[in-house]
Amino acid sequence: MTEVQLYDTTLRDGAQKEGISFSVVDKLNVARKLDEVGVHFIEGGWPGSNPKDIEFFSRAKNLSLRNSVLVAFGSTRQPKVRAEADTNLKALADVGVKVVTIVGKSSELQVIKVLETSLEENLNMISDSIRYLRAQGLTVFFDAEHFFDGFRANPDYALRCLEVAAEAGASLLVLCDTNGGSLPTNIVAAIKAVKDKSAVPLGIHAHNDGELAVANTLAAVAAGVSQVQGTINGYGERCGNANLCSIIPDLKLKMGIDCVTDDKLARLTEVSHYVSEVANLVPDVSSPYVGSSAFSHKGGLHVSALTKWSESYQHIDPSRVGNQLRVVVSELSGRGNIIYKARERGLDLPLRGEELKKLLGQIKLLESRGFQYENAEASFELLVHRARPDYQPPFELVDFMVVVEKRRRPPIKENLEEMLSEATVKVRVGTEIMHTAAEGNGPVNALDHALRKALLRFYPNLANVRLVDYKVRILEESIGTESQVRVLIESSDGIHEWRTVGSSTNIIEASWLALADSLEYWLLKQKAGTP
Amino acid sequence: MTEVQLYDTTLRDGAQKEGISFSVVDKLNVARKLDEVGVHFIEGGWPGSNPKDIEFFSRAKNLSLRNSVLVAFGSTRQPKVRAEADTNLKALADVGVKVVTIVGKSSELQVIKVLETSLEENLNMISDSIRYLRAQGLTVFFDAEHFFDGFRANPDYALRCLEVAAEAGASLLVLCDTNGGSLPTNIVAAIKAVKDKSAVPLGIHAHNDGELAVANTLAAVAAGVSQVQGTINGYGERCGNANLCSIIPDLKLKMGIDCVTDDKLARLTEVSHYVSEVANLVPDVSSPYVGSSAFSHKGGLHVSALTKWSESYQHIDPSRVGNQLRVVVSELSGRGNIIYKARERGLDLPLRGEELKKLLGQIKLLESRGFQYENAEASFELLVHRARPDYQPPFELVDFMVVVEKRRRPPIKENLEEMLSEATVKVRVGTEIMHTAAEGNGPVNALDHALRKALLRFYPNLANVRLVDYKVRILEESIGTESQVRVLIESSDGIHEWRTVGSSTNIIEASWLALADSLEYWLLKQKAGTP
Repeated sequence: MTEVQLYDTTLRDGAQKEGISFSVVDKLNVARKLDEVGVHFIEGGWPGSNPKDIEFFSRAKNLSLRNSVLVAFGSTRQPKVRAEADTNLKALADVGVKVVTIVGKSSELQVIKVLETSLEENLNMISDSIRYLRAQGLTVFFDAEHFFDGFRANPDYALRCLEVAAEAGASLLVLCDTNGGSLPTNIVAAIKAVKDKSAVPLGIHAHNDGELAVANTLAAVAAGVSQVQGTINGYGERCGNANLCSIIPDLKLKMGIDCVTDDKLARLTEVSHYVSEVANLVPDVSSPYVGSSAFSHKGGLHVSALTKWSESYQHIDPSRVGNQLRVVVSELSGRGNIIYKARERGLDLPLRGEELKKLLGQIKLLESRGFQYENAEASFELLVHRARPDYQPPFELVDFMVVVEKRRRPPIKENLEEMLSEATVKVRVGTEIMHTAAEGNGPVNALDHALRKALLRFYPNLANVRLVDYKVRILEESIGTESQVRVLIESSDGIHEWRTVGSSTNIIEASWLALADSLEYWLLKQKAGTP
Repeated sequence: MTEVQLYDTTLRDGAQKEGISFSVVDKLNVARKLDEVGVHFIEGGWPGSNPKDIEFFSRAKNLSLRNSVLVAFGSTRQPKVRAEADTNLKALADVGVKVVTIVGKSSELQVIKVLETSLEENLNMISDSIRYLRAQGLTVFFDAEHFFDGFRANPDYALRCLEVAAEAGASLLVLCDTNGGSLPTNIVAAIKAVKDKSAVPLGIHAHNDGELAVANTLAAVAAGVSQVQGTINGYGERCGNANLCSIIPDLKLKMGIDCVTDDKLARLTEVSHYVSEVANLVPDVSSPYVGSSAFSHKGGLHVSALTKWSESYQHIDPSRVGNQLRVVVSELSGRGNIIYKARERGLDLPLRGEELKKLLGQIKLLESRGFQYENAEASFELLVHRARPDYQPPFELVDFMVVVEKRRRPPIKENLEEMLSEATVKVRVGTEIMHTAAEGNGPVNALDHALRKALLRFYPNLANVRLVDYKVRILEESIGTESQVRVLIESSDGIHEWRTVGSSTNIIEASWLALADSLEYWLLKQKAGTP
């Protein structure tokens, strides 16, 4: 069986997509997720180009990845500069990874018109850079930028670039369709020419400008490349990179290439949604394999056929990729999902018919109001607890008020503005009422401070809980500032992390609900002795 | 040169996409647009399945299409029913078109498990139906449903279905990858087998479940089919149909197959956006060729290369498909991006060294505080205006206050909660101060109401401006509720749309800044006479 390694560049090339701006914490979270789905390499960033990426690599040392190798990206040295004196190469060597990928030009026209140097100097740049990095003990992958365009215009020079890289010690030559305009036939012809000359393992890096990135990648694998580069959800500049969420199942389920285990493949849908959540991009419902419509059927003939034969209108069993069949008109999925999810979390569901029915009804109602429990297991768990008649919440919210003020003190000057955010909250614990107030750096932060202040008297351990992530998603976007707002909060006590959700047309109320759930969940777990 | 005909099924198969529901008028409008872009056939609907489609065909007689032939869709007769007595076939014959497409099964398993009839009866159904329609003087295309899956399981039967259709008088045999799971190699092998047996022209109908619909279609063309079926924007059930917006330029610009004229190709982007407008779906910015990001550039290196050589990072000249190069201003950008962008927007940059330097410095400072101009051209333009010493803003914000309250009125019950959001604002226009207040459905909505209320006295036309989108992004997420918040607002006056940005640790302030920019931008444009 052909061996194919997966190389994810969501964190570097994927971040070039318009609208994506990952923080360091985002990048660490995505790297953790990529490790879980079992990609072989994670390209974490370009330390030579920005300080955020240097911080990422420094903090990534604590990730303890189990499946993936972290890779740093950079470029060949500048023209007319010694490799030893090139700051970009130095940053790569210092960043603390074992594998680096460097990009160099392999197109004659690009060298002349863009790099504005000689063809010979470009070859030296490739060679010197790789030798320098090899001398630091690093494994080096060489990204041959614009390879396919370069090969079409001047095959000899394009091949010479690869040859030089191989001689200098690159372990892998990655053929890049940088502008994304190649056809599968172009890809196959060029790979054949490369393989005729060299036995060094090859990789493919495709872009989707002709809507052919997945096809080009699969054609390259069939032609003998051993590494595929791509991104989760096909994120990337312009029309995106080759989409690993399609390539992985295409390779495994269609071409019989066992690039990830069955268990890992079954997490693909989750990973896709997780990354779009972190990128704060709405998932594309039509995405092959992982989209929420990928196995949905709009009724009529298809649904009737599906009841006769489940394979009649779907190309694979959706559970293979962690997705599910969905019948759009009748919404059959709800009940099964909820029971499944509760069991998954080891919860004793109030299984007697009436209580279960009530819980299902409530989840349906809340979902129609914008709550979503897919990424908020703690809020989901609280709902299950609250469905029990004997549930005693550790505290109850009575009411709150938030004031946000911006005042220009005379004389009116831009720099003399003052922003004030203040919150008052009233909470009940047992029979006691606590009424207090606090300021904050914004209204939600003020609420957070006031709520903790009120509860700390009763639960001093709560000081360990902090919010690590706060996300806002606007639903029904066409309504502008009146839209429904969903807030997702991730909290941590230093050991465990949990996520809660709130939804409202009012962003303050949505935040308040998610905040309160977060603290209630932790107190509940403390009480049960399993935080 | 190979001849390829384009067959659009946006109005039939495309309308199966979740979320699409075309009215008759919508369908007529889309048909007109498809005619303009020059597809050879427009599949208008299934008259036998719903009365709306019968009305469509009746009204379509007045369309006076200049390039396209209108086609009606239906299925083969029911089992054990004479063709003459089949209401679906009768509806097809009566609808007033010259060409019809009928779908029939070509997979043994589908016949047995879903149709629940004999293999022989299915062949009769195909034959009888085609003969009946031919006898009515119609040209008949035969859609061989599940052909590729059927061919893999039982090639003889799949080929026999085609043979029967050809003998009965079908002018074209359309090979359908109904479940969308085939690889290009499957497609090519099956087509080769068909061509060995028959000289009847072939068509290809692909779905995108493996993200290969475009590649499968191109592979089929290379293997000799003469008609491609697809939809605008790849709309369709599950993961969609083959995307004509990619196939048309791939065929013409990459494979040299002249399926539409240059003039018509240059309308592709317009048609794509028009259809998404009618379908009420947000256009995918990353769509190959036609997406607004398809030729956009964010990285400083890429932009600097583009100024040296326009082809360096794009696979075609975007004007060929009616799209354009777009340079995105972002944290990754250099000085080149900003100058390029200002020119693109027809702005007179304060080009004297000192002022330009000051502007660049300010953009850098604001970006470090979380502002991002890549999706907020209007805010960017305001920055350029404000860099001029003589700039007079149409209004000035003095100060504001927002109160959000949640109170439980006694007796304390969940349902008796009240949420109140109220804003007061003070703005200066010329020498006048306006100080007013308003309520809203959440704090930002209240601010929006109050600000408009204050300004309407001076600028009554402002009533035309409304917010169409409001997005929130949390930056530096590790800090939880103290995070920096970026707000992006999209506004419209019914004719133009523009986007503005605000950033602050305080979500209310961030929203306020973006709101104020939106109104200031529009007033400025009004004043200049070019809204």
